[in-house]
Amino acid sequence: AAVDKQVDFANYFCTYGFLYHQKEMLSDKVRMDAYYNAIFQNKHHFQGKTVLDVGTGSGILAIWSAQAGARKVYAVEATKMADHARELVKANGFSNVVEVIEGSMEDINLPEKVDVIISEWMGYFLLRESMFDSVIFARDHWLKPDGMMYPSHARIWLAPMKTGLVEQKRRDYEGAMDDWYHFVDETKSYYGVDMGVFTDPFKDEQRKYYLQTSMWNNLHPNQIIGTPALVMEIDCLTATVNDIITINANISSSVTTDNTWLCGFAGWFDVHFRGRNENPAQKEIELSTAPSENCGTHWGQQVFPLHPAVHAGQGDALKVALSMRRSKENHRLLEVDIGGDIKQTSGKQISLPTKMYYIE
Amino acid sequence: AAVDKQVDFANYFCTYGFLYHQKEMLSDKVRMDAYYNAIFQNKHHFQGKTVLDVGTGSGILAIWSAQAGARKVYAVEATKMADHARELVKANGFSNVVEVIEGSMEDINLPEKVDVIISEWMGYFLLRESMFDSVIFARDHWLKPDGMMYPSHARIWLAPMKTGLVEQKRRDYEGAMDDWYHFVDETKSYYGVDMGVFTDPFKDEQRKYYLQTSMWNNLHPNQIIGTPALVMEIDCLTATVNDIITINANISSSVTTDNTWLCGFAGWFDVHFRGRNENPAQKEIELSTAPSENCGTHWGQQVFPLHPAVHAGQGDALKVALSMRRSKENHRLLEVDIGGDIKQTSGKQISLPTKMYYIE
Ligand SMILES: Nc1ncnc2c1ncn2[C@@H]1O[C@H](CSCC[C@H](N)C(=O)O)[C@@H](O)[C@H]1O
Ligand SMILES: Nc1ncnc2c1ncn2[C@@H]1O[C@H](CSCC[C@H](N)C(=O)O)[C@@H](O)[C@H]1O
Repeated sequence: AAVDKQVDFANYFCTYGFLYHQKEMLSDKVRMDAYYNAIFQNKHHFQGKTVLDVGTGSGILAIWSAQAGARKVYAVEATKMADHARELVKANGFSNVVEVIEGSMEDINLPEKVDVIISEWMGYFLLRESMFDSVIFARDHWLKPDGMMYPSHARIWLAPMKTGLVEQKRRDYEGAMDDWYHFVDETKSYYGVDMGVFTDPFKDEQRKYYLQTSMWNNLHPNQIIGTPALVMEIDCLTATVNDIITINANISSSVTTDNTWLCGFAGWFDVHFRGRNENPAQKEIELSTAPSENCGTHWGQQVFPLHPAVHAGQGDALKVALSMRRSKENHRLLEVDIGGDIKQTSGKQISLPTKMYYIE
Repeated sequence: AAVDKQVDFANYFCTYGFLYHQKEMLSDKVRMDAYYNAIFQNKHHFQGKTVLDVGTGSGILAIWSAQAGARKVYAVEATKMADHARELVKANGFSNVVEVIEGSMEDINLPEKVDVIISEWMGYFLLRESMFDSVIFARDHWLKPDGMMYPSHARIWLAPMKTGLVEQKRRDYEGAMDDWYHFVDETKSYYGVDMGVFTDPFKDEQRKYYLQTSMWNNLHPNQIIGTPALVMEIDCLTATVNDIITINANISSSVTTDNTWLCGFAGWFDVHFRGRNENPAQKEIELSTAPSENCGTHWGQQVFPLHPAVHAGQGDALKVALSMRRSKENHRLLEVDIGGDIKQTSGKQISLPTKMYYIE
């Protein structure tokens, strides 16, 4: 279905219009260090070049590009944040280099093609928000044939994990249902209306909310109980919308912790700044959102819960089929199916029936 | 400006599509008792009559109307909740009386005019959500000349109050700004960009959020420090959209608590079910959302904070000018100006400069 632009603005873009939200991203040191180092340790990619910043937000990446020596930077931003970005550019003395353009990437015009496209387009589990579509559009329309992408590559990861959160959610769900049954009784006895017919749809709503929606979490590395598996790798220079609109992956992982519980799967992503083959980075930079002892990002990880948890031990072999698509109601949200089996070292095989999760 | 229907759906109607949200309203005993008693203690208004329920949600008011003896009930609901309502009607045995119609009140057609319009249209501070517009539309198009409105009357109240919440918000605001200055310093020293130019707009955003937006609260009656003043009274049978689209009121209150602090104003509403002059209610029912020791409603009260608080004592005379209008960006949200003065028993007069508040 065609996307209603104004609805998309109400649902998606609106939050980016607040400095409060931009500040959250600007305060994410892992994110900031990665882009900062990617630019300033690879100045040769920027010196004297033209740059396009897709979704400039506060204007930070555009200003860094100018500071690194870009000749001209086009900084495109869909929301009113564009006005603030323009002020920031001016206050930092780059009005002659950075041109802030308010509009959607898909609608605006540039006077020339560019050498570099830089963008921070990544959402939860990489693809939530579907903003990479706009970067692909920018690349196909405005990148020179020998131009390059910042970042140049992106990867999605999935790993088996344990967490108390899943049990907590299960208890919350059961509490909500207990409360519901009480509500049905009371409404019948006080107000003479039998709400029992709502029990199933209410249960569905609550299951979706507590049990079928992936959860944001900043995991500790020791919560990952097996080898992370690569779900997909994206070459930002060549990927098409078709490559990311649905994803199907068959992956495997082996459990590395003994006598533990498989409570679900954790998903995250990383991106790399490698320049391009003919013109590589001098210093290759990685931005990872993997579980980390003290370098969490605002992306955290997405947890896909498993009910009930499955006992697992070192050496158990996991096979997982993951498929992901966009939600029909909102193309910026995702739906994921995860299923598979676990083959224990004893030889016993336990199947993990396919479950559907929402990334909301 | 014309309202984009799909944006209105994304911003407003969407929450009403969840049983979870309908349950919150259905669990509000003060609200439920009022409508229940209004209907069942005035069965003569329903027996053998045709009824229109504007925004039937779960279908509760339509079913009660049928139980009270209505000949036919049209139950109009804009969201997919209409499907659930239809199921509830069926499960409770009223499919022959209640007809659920999915659609906006403004768009749908009825086969006849009705004797009674019932609706639960009230938002925070009565008018937030602007749903009464749809009730007016329904009345003007579908109520018989001698028909009646359930509820028949509505009133908005404002009273001086004290609360620790206002100081708390002030501290939160100051914390957010301290954090901001730290952020500006760090971004300058680590990342070479001076964000100082964002300080004023960020401050505006935070002021709006912490200090200029009314707060939901369930107040205890002893937090009200003066006589409540009537801001406006609505006769649901005759009010026009013009009467409610902007409101200007000059009101007065006298402080009834000694040696206290005026920390702001509390706003709430009540509605009455009186039938109509020629055909009054046998038993007149009131639904009040005033501060109450143990009968809070899900509406609570709206608190309009005053910074700094003003010392006040018994007998002090307050004069307040209140004006209210709809937000330009979203016609379902409100903006309120409140200003005035307080004349202390000593004769000293303190002015309360006009402040603007958002009801979001
Ligand atoms: N199609 C599109 N056209 C223009 N701006 C877009 C866009 N899709 C997303 N955006 C904007 O892209 C930004 C992504 S957030 C990143 C902001 C900034 N580059 C930084 O790194 O801090 C948001 O401000 C959002 O409004
Ligand atoms: N113009 C309109 N047309 C149809 N339904 C509307 C409407 N404006 C609001 N509504 C619906 O009105 C309901 C208000 S909430 C009240 C629900 C129910 N009558 C009860 O008392 O429990 C919501 O479900 C909302 O979706």
